[in-house]
Amino acid sequence: MYQARIDRVLQAMKAMGLEQMIVSDPDSIWYLTGYYVYPFERLFALYLRADGAHKLFLNRMFPVPEAPWEQVWFSDTDDYVAILAQHVDADKPMGIDKEWPARFLLPLMAHNPNSRCVLASACVDDARACKDETERELMRRSSQINDIVMERASAWIREGMTEREIADYIVSQYAAEGCDAMAFQPIVSFGPHAADPHHEADQTRLKAGDCIVIDMGCRKDRYCSDMTRTFFCGTPDPKYAAIHDLVREANELAESMIRPGVKLCDLDKAARDHIAAAGYGEYFTHRLGHFIGQTEHEQGDVSATADVEARPGMIFSIEPGVYLPDEFGVRVEDLVLVTENGCEILNHVDKHWKSVG
Amino acid sequence: MYQARIDRVLQAMKAMGLEQMIVSDPDSIWYLTGYYVYPFERLFALYLRADGAHKLFLNRMFPVPEAPWEQVWFSDTDDYVAILAQHVDADKPMGIDKEWPARFLLPLMAHNPNSRCVLASACVDDARACKDETERELMRRSSQINDIVMERASAWIREGMTEREIADYIVSQYAAEGCDAMAFQPIVSFGPHAADPHHEADQTRLKAGDCIVIDMGCRKDRYCSDMTRTFFCGTPDPKYAAIHDLVREANELAESMIRPGVKLCDLDKAARDHIAAAGYGEYFTHRLGHFIGQTEHEQGDVSATADVEARPGMIFSIEPGVYLPDEFGVRVEDLVLVTENGCEILNHVDKHWKSVG
Repeated sequence: MYQARIDRVLQAMKAMGLEQMIVSDPDSIWYLTGYYVYPFERLFALYLRADGAHKLFLNRMFPVPEAPWEQVWFSDTDDYVAILAQHVDADKPMGIDKEWPARFLLPLMAHNPNSRCVLASACVDDARACKDETERELMRRSSQINDIVMERASAWIREGMTEREIADYIVSQYAAEGCDAMAFQPIVSFGPHAADPHHEADQTRLKAGDCIVIDMGCRKDRYCSDMTRTFFCGTPDPKYAAIHDLVREANELAESMIRPGVKLCDLDKAARDHIAAAGYGEYFTHRLGHFIGQTEHEQGDVSATADVEARPGMIFSIEPGVYLPDEFGVRVEDLVLVTENGCEILNHVDKHWKSVG
Repeated sequence: MYQARIDRVLQAMKAMGLEQMIVSDPDSIWYLTGYYVYPFERLFALYLRADGAHKLFLNRMFPVPEAPWEQVWFSDTDDYVAILAQHVDADKPMGIDKEWPARFLLPLMAHNPNSRCVLASACVDDARACKDETERELMRRSSQINDIVMERASAWIREGMTEREIADYIVSQYAAEGCDAMAFQPIVSFGPHAADPHHEADQTRLKAGDCIVIDMGCRKDRYCSDMTRTFFCGTPDPKYAAIHDLVREANELAESMIRPGVKLCDLDKAARDHIAAAGYGEYFTHRLGHFIGQTEHEQGDVSATADVEARPGMIFSIEPGVYLPDEFGVRVEDLVLVTENGCEILNHVDKHWKSVG
């Protein structure tokens, strides 16, 4: 499995004319090797070579099991970038993944001035964007848990609860379901707070008529889920209920178009046009979706500039929203998996608005 | 306060011959402006200029209040690095902080090839390393909570508990004390697990005679604490108790030397020599300490290569340890604040070994 993944990266490097590349994202290194190290501020890198003579650069603080490649060890007190610079080809271009920070990149460029550094993250990121069968199953399982906890939370909500209480409840239910962690802090937004797509849950109490945006995701066996539903406490203002219908339709419209070959920007356009036709275009303030996998935001988005065709194995969110400043907000979000001939929606919680509390 | 902090950074830039710099670390931007944005994978940058015409580069997704500087806004669908490149001086060297990832840095270098990018993180990091009075008080308060919770945890431990239970208890007590979060996942290691300085708490149960390493820290009002104590369940093996005494002495010896002007490498050497003299030098496998503030590991360390003099306001850990593989480990760690004429130890939990459980 790991060799197949590495081969996909090497093919992409070849297409870019690269014979060597540094991969630094710990999630990418795990994806390609099965070794997970979170090195904090320290250097940890997988060096891939077209000839297969890959190397791992490792701090002695973070041992990994015996690897089939050369392991280059260093300590905190070593000049580790100099060590790395000596172990790579100083006369050929070097691919760099998008995460590598300036503290390593600028000294490497100074050590090896004849090796032009090239942003080559797509070689790894495009491979990660198309999930293999093992990953698809893990993504399904993570979203199953998310469905269960969303249903449980919506049944548990009562008028007078705080945003924070509901967010904490969601976190506790993820733990009860055996999740590794949250994929991100749950967003729970009442009424006007919902106008901020990234509102942080606070001590505000739920009142009759409030909308309730819940955007939540867990991490299970390294893979993330992410779903949003919007409820109402008691009976909604008919205007807000109609906006909810509009946003749900935009979500369903985009999802209905997903199959291999569709351009992601066309999904964004379809959802955006549907919302704009009802006069709310300016209030849909973000992209339609983002890729997801080991982290809740992986490289790749579903936006007006995403001139990319859907390919089998891609998993991304479809999350249109409408945000009326200081007043109200709604978002409806699923994760979808592009299949060989269509798409599989990974979330199954009903999307129609409903009253809770 | 923010102006005073920015002035310190500008002075350091001047000393490096830099008239412009990009600061990207969200904690640094908060430190210099009071605005905190965590932009996920998106661009968020403070551009500092010697002439005071600073700019903030902001994604519309993450609004901040009106700032006294020019705010340059962009959307996900814009070519935001190109926008940034147009707003900076393309003909002069550009300072870059250590965090800026390759996905922004390499395209900026391509846009402005005549502007040499220079690693200038020290301009900000050195300012952050010396805490001002506001920060010192926040650091004291965070360590006070850490003391309280360590005392509570050590009184609560019983034979048969799991590492995970104790770690969860510590987290719950941080929440009860009103912390924002943990500074890091608490390390709770029994017996042979303690030989791994970064062991992850698991379902192992505490047995009589086990050592118990607890390395924990909370985050309160953005500032972190970090302390380690090693206990024993019941009566320790006399050999292990003696090693604990040795490590505590190394901790106390290093702390007794701290005052402005002492070289940090000399602190490391003193602690290391003390442990080596007893024959355990090869088992003290990491640096003596690290800087800390808004994150648990900030730039700067106390190690053999730290050829830096202590200055008032610096806060770092002093954490010697001895790790006998597959057998046993001990670490004793405090945070210390360098004062005008000595040092203030921010932790007050007794460091002698004691029996718990």
